[in-house]
Amino acid sequence: MAAVQQSDAPLASTTDEKPISNIVIVIAMQTEAQPVVNKFELIEDPNSPFPEGVPWVRYHGKFKGLNLNLIWPGKDPSSGVDSVGTISSALVTYAAIQSFKPDLIINAGTAGGFKARGASVGDIFIASDCAFHDRRIPIPVFDLYGVGSRKAFETPNLVKELNLKVAKLSTGDSLDMTPQDESSITANDATVKDMEGAAVAYVADLLKVPAIFVKAVTDIIDGDKPTAEEFLQNLAAVTSALDLAVEQVINFIDGKCISEL
Amino acid sequence: MAAVQQSDAPLASTTDEKPISNIVIVIAMQTEAQPVVNKFELIEDPNSPFPEGVPWVRYHGKFKGLNLNLIWPGKDPSSGVDSVGTISSALVTYAAIQSFKPDLIINAGTAGGFKARGASVGDIFIASDCAFHDRRIPIPVFDLYGVGSRKAFETPNLVKELNLKVAKLSTGDSLDMTPQDESSITANDATVKDMEGAAVAYVADLLKVPAIFVKAVTDIIDGDKPTAEEFLQNLAAVTSALDLAVEQVINFIDGKCISEL
Repeated sequence: MAAVQQSDAPLASTTDEKPISNIVIVIAMQTEAQPVVNKFELIEDPNSPFPEGVPWVRYHGKFKGLNLNLIWPGKDPSSGVDSVGTISSALVTYAAIQSFKPDLIINAGTAGGFKARGASVGDIFIASDCAFHDRRIPIPVFDLYGVGSRKAFETPNLVKELNLKVAKLSTGDSLDMTPQDESSITANDATVKDMEGAAVAYVADLLKVPAIFVKAVTDIIDGDKPTAEEFLQNLAAVTSALDLAVEQVINFIDGKCISEL
Repeated sequence: MAAVQQSDAPLASTTDEKPISNIVIVIAMQTEAQPVVNKFELIEDPNSPFPEGVPWVRYHGKFKGLNLNLIWPGKDPSSGVDSVGTISSALVTYAAIQSFKPDLIINAGTAGGFKARGASVGDIFIASDCAFHDRRIPIPVFDLYGVGSRKAFETPNLVKELNLKVAKLSTGDSLDMTPQDESSITANDATVKDMEGAAVAYVADLLKVPAIFVKAVTDIIDGDKPTAEEFLQNLAAVTSALDLAVEQVINFIDGKCISEL
């Protein structure tokens, strides 16, 4: 326990007391990313630091006192669709931390929500915790590793000021939900379900970068409509709500230290 | 189509005609990695090129004409167990390719096998194809991205010389298998099931590094015994078979060009 506190201390003393300067925003889908790119007038970097072959796109720009790097994992070279899911988001989070040394990571995106737990279409949630619901390893301790539950960076002032809902997020690589996924999501005590959050949290935690999660509800998982249909139907409208929330979050962050969030 | 052939051409002309020199071996579990480390007298690198915070371990050494880098994703800092699964293996594959510019990647490890498709405990398989069975995205084209089926690098001479079985591999982040996983594994036409292969294949394909997959069967999925129990029971014994197979594969590779495998 003492060791954990010791190793956390340098982060607090060196990083927390100066204003946040570098932010990496990880957004999985182009439809989600483009409004944020437009709003902050970010520019695509034709010479991104990422290696040849990867489809990852870096948009960057200044906003007030902040250097913003928005990383979109790009179109999958094989299939041409957005590179959604845990593997791509883990890879871009890793590569972006190496290249841009951010003070903070923001993972923003759409999510499914459970109405039984108070979620409605268009709601914006800040995740308090992230965990996986599709990594079942029924061997002692490996089971906990599989679930990979971890706290997001806490932002009590931000959620109060912007009046955002706070809930637990559960992540898996499927858009649908099997009975086993559902059990795991219940065990994770999650209100929102996405395909990237816990992977971004895992990498950010390894590399000791604070990470926050802004998730906009596109579809109600425990509702009447098929998830894929409802997701596609609401994607554009909910993306506007997400875009506004990201703008407000970034505005709130500007000029503050990590410890003031 | 022409563009694809063009972009493949430089790889063939520059890399294929000189003997293979640098190999990265990705092995997820310490129990699987240690015998290979011992056999080739690999040395742990105390100053690995990986960033602070990641548990990834690099073992390296020379064997005949080959520079070997064996990367084990290490013990998860939070839980203390081996960092198994797709995210860790994708990350270490990415980082190892960046650091060591390998001519070839070998992903070796244990796997479950289907007896109905001819697998027995202790069998060694070379994967012809890798795909995911737990990334269901029921939206056109996203469904194909989720499955992420791709051919492993073909090694007709190697499998003939070493008399190895060849079959399709299906990858997912769970040790168990739900009915939905089973349907996807059947759709993937897979004989062996692991937790890393398709993730290594994905990253290797993005970065255009040939990758081969050596999988040893620890448990029969369509048998009578519970997977976790059978896996743990057979892990040590099957690891010896795996270790022998990796040794034979490396011996075969030494002195050959990529195109001769």
